[in-house]
Amino acid sequence: MEPLVIAGRSFNSRLMVGTGKYDSLEVMREALDASGAEIVTVAVRRVNLDAREASLLAYIDLDRYTLLPNTAGCHTAEEAVRTARLARAAGLSNWVKLEVIPDDGTLLPDPIATVEAAEVLVKEGFVVLPYTTDDHVVARRLLEVGCAAVMPYGSAIGTGRGLESVERIARIVDEVRGRVPVVVDAGIGAPSDAALALETGADAVLVNTAIARAGDPVAMARAMRLAVEAGYLARRAGRIPKSGVPSPSSPEAGVVGRS
Amino acid sequence: MEPLVIAGRSFNSRLMVGTGKYDSLEVMREALDASGAEIVTVAVRRVNLDAREASLLAYIDLDRYTLLPNTAGCHTAEEAVRTARLARAAGLSNWVKLEVIPDDGTLLPDPIATVEAAEVLVKEGFVVLPYTTDDHVVARRLLEVGCAAVMPYGSAIGTGRGLESVERIARIVDEVRGRVPVVVDAGIGAPSDAALALETGADAVLVNTAIARAGDPVAMARAMRLAVEAGYLARRAGRIPKSGVPSPSSPEAGVVGRS
Amino acid sequence: MEPLVIAGRSFNSRLMVGTGKYDSLEVMREALDASGAEIVTVAVRRVNLDAREASLLAYIDLDRYTLLPNTAGCHTAEEAVRTARLARAAGLSNWVKLEVIPDDGTLLPDPIATVEAAEVLVKEGFVVLPYTTDDHVVARRLLEVGCAAVMPYGSAIGTGRGLESVERIARIVDEVRGRVPVVVDAGIGAPSDAALALETGADAVLVNTAIARAGDPVAMARAMRLAVEAGYLARRAGRIPKSGVPSPSSPEAGVVGRS
Amino acid sequence: MEPLVIAGRSFNSRLMVGTGKYDSLEVMREALDASGAEIVTVAVRRVNLDAREASLLAYIDLDRYTLLPNTAGCHTAEEAVRTARLARAAGLSNWVKLEVIPDDGTLLPDPIATVEAAEVLVKEGFVVLPYTTDDHVVARRLLEVGCAAVMPYGSAIGTGRGLESVERIARIVDEVRGRVPVVVDAGIGAPSDAALALETGADAVLVNTAIARAGDPVAMARAMRLAVEAGYLARRAGRIPKSGVPSPSSPEAGVVGRS
Repeated sequence: MEPLVIAGRSFNSRLMVGTGKYDSLEVMREALDASGAEIVTVAVRRVNLDAREASLLAYIDLDRYTLLPNTAGCHTAEEAVRTARLARAAGLSNWVKLEVIPDDGTLLPDPIATVEAAEVLVKEGFVVLPYTTDDHVVARRLLEVGCAAVMPYGSAIGTGRGLESVERIARIVDEVRGRVPVVVDAGIGAPSDAALALETGADAVLVNTAIARAGDPVAMARAMRLAVEAGYLARRAGRIPKSGVPSPSSPEAGVVGRS
Repeated sequence: MEPLVIAGRSFNSRLMVGTGKYDSLEVMREALDASGAEIVTVAVRRVNLDAREASLLAYIDLDRYTLLPNTAGCHTAEEAVRTARLARAAGLSNWVKLEVIPDDGTLLPDPIATVEAAEVLVKEGFVVLPYTTDDHVVARRLLEVGCAAVMPYGSAIGTGRGLESVERIARIVDEVRGRVPVVVDAGIGAPSDAALALETGADAVLVNTAIARAGDPVAMARAMRLAVEAGYLARRAGRIPKSGVPSPSSPEAGVVGRS
Repeated sequence: MEPLVIAGRSFNSRLMVGTGKYDSLEVMREALDASGAEIVTVAVRRVNLDAREASLLAYIDLDRYTLLPNTAGCHTAEEAVRTARLARAAGLSNWVKLEVIPDDGTLLPDPIATVEAAEVLVKEGFVVLPYTTDDHVVARRLLEVGCAAVMPYGSAIGTGRGLESVERIARIVDEVRGRVPVVVDAGIGAPSDAALALETGADAVLVNTAIARAGDPVAMARAMRLAVEAGYLARRAGRIPKSGVPSPSSPEAGVVGRS
Repeated sequence: MEPLVIAGRSFNSRLMVGTGKYDSLEVMREALDASGAEIVTVAVRRVNLDAREASLLAYIDLDRYTLLPNTAGCHTAEEAVRTARLARAAGLSNWVKLEVIPDDGTLLPDPIATVEAAEVLVKEGFVVLPYTTDDHVVARRLLEVGCAAVMPYGSAIGTGRGLESVERIARIVDEVRGRVPVVVDAGIGAPSDAALALETGADAVLVNTAIARAGDPVAMARAMRLAVEAGYLARRAGRIPKSGVPSPSSPEAGVVGRS
């Protein structure tokens, strides 16, 4: 695989992972290792900024993984901006996975507030990777305000329903045209979903629940890693078109046994 | 991966491949190699049984690959039975991928004729791997007459449309309950489809067009190989259920930045 | 609407209804009336053949409705044949909706046993309307043995999931080519499903659970009636093709307000 | 059907229709009549405001139909606002179907610009019915700025692909909770789609291409009318839930013929 480049930094893995919902931090650490991920997202609100040693961060090797603080739990643009500043001030990172999610019920992003918050944060020097809907017009706005990636959902967070609309993700890929990475974030439930995201032209996926809540998170992390590689290869290899017209695998020429 | 066992023989790969539709036999040979496949299906009618050296078979290392003759092009049970006998008489194999496909338009199997032909061939000592619909009641019949595997379609041959009905494949898996392998055969268009088949509980997949007609067949063969492994691992790891109710990746406990 | 002709008899309604699952026989009678149906199916096993007055049949005006006895509950061809004979012997009808359903879990038909039973019953002079899968090759067999209609499922009985595969129903319509009616039977959950069946080329639908278990069965019966008429009209009117390429509703010519 | 109330005005029909793409204005007039529609949308740019007699408007009985000018062809909020003002100034209406569609390729609305334009127009006293995406958070914003309805697409304009996501439409219905009508606008291809929109809780649909480009527009208009009524009735009647578990139509009690 070619490296994934975000804001000038290169990564060999195209699978990003989350840190929530694991049964234990030991299992999380093993799953992170098996995933091959280099970017690990962590909710700012979960980090004990004053006593880092005893917290989640003690389980993440910061020499190996790039930490991507996220603003999970923020319902408004203002909250998200404040949370990003707090993370940077505490020395976590100037990268931020921006999440503005008004409803705890649907966990779907607010596209308008996300664009607003992104604009503020970009101006303050943040590297902004926004979690967004699968609307390509919104993706265009996020690009216009200077985001370093676009992270559309496949489906709602934690549902494991894969890509609700392959076409909408494809439209975002067309819209973005490689200027920044497209990362499918949320909804990935199984390796097939991850492969499909890459096949559709996404540059990477972010997976949390599907690994953390799998029966065997470490094995699932490894499966996701393979699937991402498979999808990446397939995209470059060029898949056959879907067709309504069946086509025989074996040409008719030289038929025997049908005299 | 555990070995795949068919009729008492063990295989390390869960990806079977076809030999039709390649631009050249050289490309086919490379793609076979990249796929890791051990079982290679070949249409009996395409084999020049008298002058094997100059034919397709010269490109397939028979020490490495197990040849699975198929009855592609047979429209009736009688034709298929005759073709299988011809292949065995010519020394090809007593294994047969049974295809009874009445219409060249849809390329869908005739479930009733398939059961009839399978019954005849099993009685004659063939190891029968029937290509069939995604109907679990038909799968039951195929088991009852002694087939060594059940090979339901994902979708019609050559369409690349993946699994039309995950539920129907799952029902066949439930029906068969591991007594013989379930191999999804036909319709696989991309690695995500192959992974999904394994995740759904299929024991293997057979892929032809999606590799042979890919932009880069060798790279696609490798992608399929990875996807099959990913799907296999995921099935054993235990995927999260699909849910209508979103669930946050980051628990609410210990929230900072929202005081 | 043109009349629906089955085995030489004409019907003005293209909505057939069932008689099971109603909260009361009074509600059933009202719903039948609202549906406009002329063909009413009734499970032979539910009919008290000796004491008809006190039973279900007392609630069905036999001058108005054509009774279509069905073999619900029969797991094998033999049982179904026996049940049809019993119904005829008791004077119910020589028409039979043939159901051979091996599993009480999935309630899906056995296509092979259905063809076998149909063949026997047609030879005995029955007018056979078989409940079958959405497999067009099976439909072909049912035609070959002389069935008077083909009744594929939309989805499994009682699930209300509509047409699992519009394409498979379309393939049956193409296969049958108007020689006998195609009636989508099972799975209709809402008027949109009924309309879709007719739009796809089915000649009629049979609805039971979706009416009987609706909040207001009488209103739902009326809704189904309207939807069937809508779908019938639309089929003849000729719907627009589905398109991947959007097309503006308003031509560009004569644009004002954009100078 | 209960009347549909928009901005204090009542309508008996829940089917709105467009005026573009007809082969002739005579056919359009007949189709309008057959549809039973009371609200007819017309692109401001297509109206010859100075010579109304010779134009489209001469074919629409303004005593019978409420004209709903739309801003089709406007790529930005500014253009749309200007077009709405122009229509009002010319005496067309102070109602406006607001369309802000940046790309002629996808014909999908710009949710952010739509909210901006809606806010301006509401403040200027317009009755604003915005064409929008199927994003419920955007719908919430449109309500907040005072729109008189929310008009999400089913799928892209002119594609006839129906409701891409029933769940997203349902989410908008939940969001709006009856405060203003939800009108599914764009993508309706057949009566089944129209019925489904109403069944899902939409208050009305707007149909243009599916009628205008049908083989027989007048018959299709009638079919749409019936389907809308069917969907409306079904919503109130209460449909059965979709179920993964099949349920027999005929209870087991009192079985005969299986002794």
